[in-house]
Amino acid sequence: IHINPILRRLAPERQALTIEEQSLVIITGASRGFGRAVAEALCQNLVSEGSCILLMARSQAGLEATAQSLKTIQPNSIKVQCCRIDLAHPDETVFRTSIQEALSKFEGDLKQFEQAVVVHNAGTMSPQGLMTWHCSKSTDLAAYFAMNLSSTMVLNSVLHEEIFAQVPKAVVVNVSSLAAVEAIISWSLYCTGKAARDMYFKCLAQECPQYRVLNYAPGPLDTDMIAEVLADPKIHPEIQKIFEELVQQGNLLQPKTSADKLAQVLKADEFVSGSHVDYFNL
Amino acid sequence: IHINPILRRLAPERQALTIEEQSLVIITGASRGFGRAVAEALCQNLVSEGSCILLMARSQAGLEATAQSLKTIQPNSIKVQCCRIDLAHPDETVFRTSIQEALSKFEGDLKQFEQAVVVHNAGTMSPQGLMTWHCSKSTDLAAYFAMNLSSTMVLNSVLHEEIFAQVPKAVVVNVSSLAAVEAIISWSLYCTGKAARDMYFKCLAQECPQYRVLNYAPGPLDTDMIAEVLADPKIHPEIQKIFEELVQQGNLLQPKTSADKLAQVLKADEFVSGSHVDYFNL
Repeated sequence: IHINPILRRLAPERQALTIEEQSLVIITGASRGFGRAVAEALCQNLVSEGSCILLMARSQAGLEATAQSLKTIQPNSIKVQCCRIDLAHPDETVFRTSIQEALSKFEGDLKQFEQAVVVHNAGTMSPQGLMTWHCSKSTDLAAYFAMNLSSTMVLNSVLHEEIFAQVPKAVVVNVSSLAAVEAIISWSLYCTGKAARDMYFKCLAQECPQYRVLNYAPGPLDTDMIAEVLADPKIHPEIQKIFEELVQQGNLLQPKTSADKLAQVLKADEFVSGSHVDYFNL
Repeated sequence: IHINPILRRLAPERQALTIEEQSLVIITGASRGFGRAVAEALCQNLVSEGSCILLMARSQAGLEATAQSLKTIQPNSIKVQCCRIDLAHPDETVFRTSIQEALSKFEGDLKQFEQAVVVHNAGTMSPQGLMTWHCSKSTDLAAYFAMNLSSTMVLNSVLHEEIFAQVPKAVVVNVSSLAAVEAIISWSLYCTGKAARDMYFKCLAQECPQYRVLNYAPGPLDTDMIAEVLADPKIHPEIQKIFEELVQQGNLLQPKTSADKLAQVLKADEFVSGSHVDYFNL
């Protein structure tokens, strides 16, 4: 068998990590839907006394509702901060300042944390319903990749310097999708962005074998996005039919169900770092 | 086994096509290196009398040199046109006008062609040597994805409307890389862009089962890029070591060798449309 000679050089040694206490947890898109469910699931299952959770999103009201929910789950033992951030316009300086300000509100030192857990959940599907041959507006493409790709890369770079490098362990979760690995009609923009994000985090795992990096595809979720997909006349009929059937057959997942599974996967700590793990493969 | 319910719906029926005569061939990045080798290989192995080849790139001198080489291979029976285009700044209108002007120079009707063969070869690696945590300059990321991702999508969208839709058959080749499927240290930008491009063309295959779409990874080639990799102090030592070994052991492929293999793959017409095919897997 011929093997690409570069391939032989790509297997780094990996250090196993375990999820422990005293975490600094950061979640983007935490104001609603799956992001909120992940915040709740991690709060319930993973973090212990003295942990801090930083919720990031555009909507202050949504962030505060998520924070309120977390306080119900763990009334006294954890600290929660909200950080308004606009991921549609990635800017290193703005991201860095926002994170530094948010961290300063925890009134502690990063050294207190045994690990950082980051969940890159934020993402959009719009513009919807573009066939591959409708991807002709470069400004639309640029805006989509800024929001769904560059923004995540810039934020992760800033988090790497500001946080990962300061704590003993880093767990980095990318909220991926089946669309990262399978082509879906009229969703080429979404598929392309998700495939690219998966690869970025696969590279992070390659470059930082001491981290635990997971591309988690949460399955089809019962969130606001579904209502948008069913209502939008620009959505391809094939896609609408898929989701209509999912709704009719009760096959949509509750965000909590998939978020709890994510928490279990992190707790079990058996995934290959950098791999793509689907809810349905667990 | 649990199967993601969306997955069951994603297998379209495919129509087999065969490579035939009277082709309109379009190649980007055709002014040098692998693009020129592909132009020569297709000219030698695939196209027949009455075919037209459109060479696209920024460098007029490079395009003319490639055109000259093609005329040596097939002196009379094919027409060659050069089209200067700047893929770093994707613009639907500019791309459409450039293609319409170039086609008009062939002085024929698109109806004369039995098929269109497009090879999306253009791409850059710069900025080199960025670790995943150095991907913090959003303008650099935007420029990279404009050149290596959006540009290909915009051009393919325009080609779809202007050409693919007007001819009986379309064969679309994306020049991919091992980096589209494997994470490589300090190459996250390159890996991310290549993974995204692969997925875009996988979606094209999904949406257009009547097309033949191939993501072809040509292997490590002996082109100008190698000299750049070896000379640039910003390149990661791990990467330089890999390429130094390839050079020392004579394991770099000549562009012609890999381009000829691509021509064979297209001629054999046995690949799964939308799949990623590596030189070393053939």
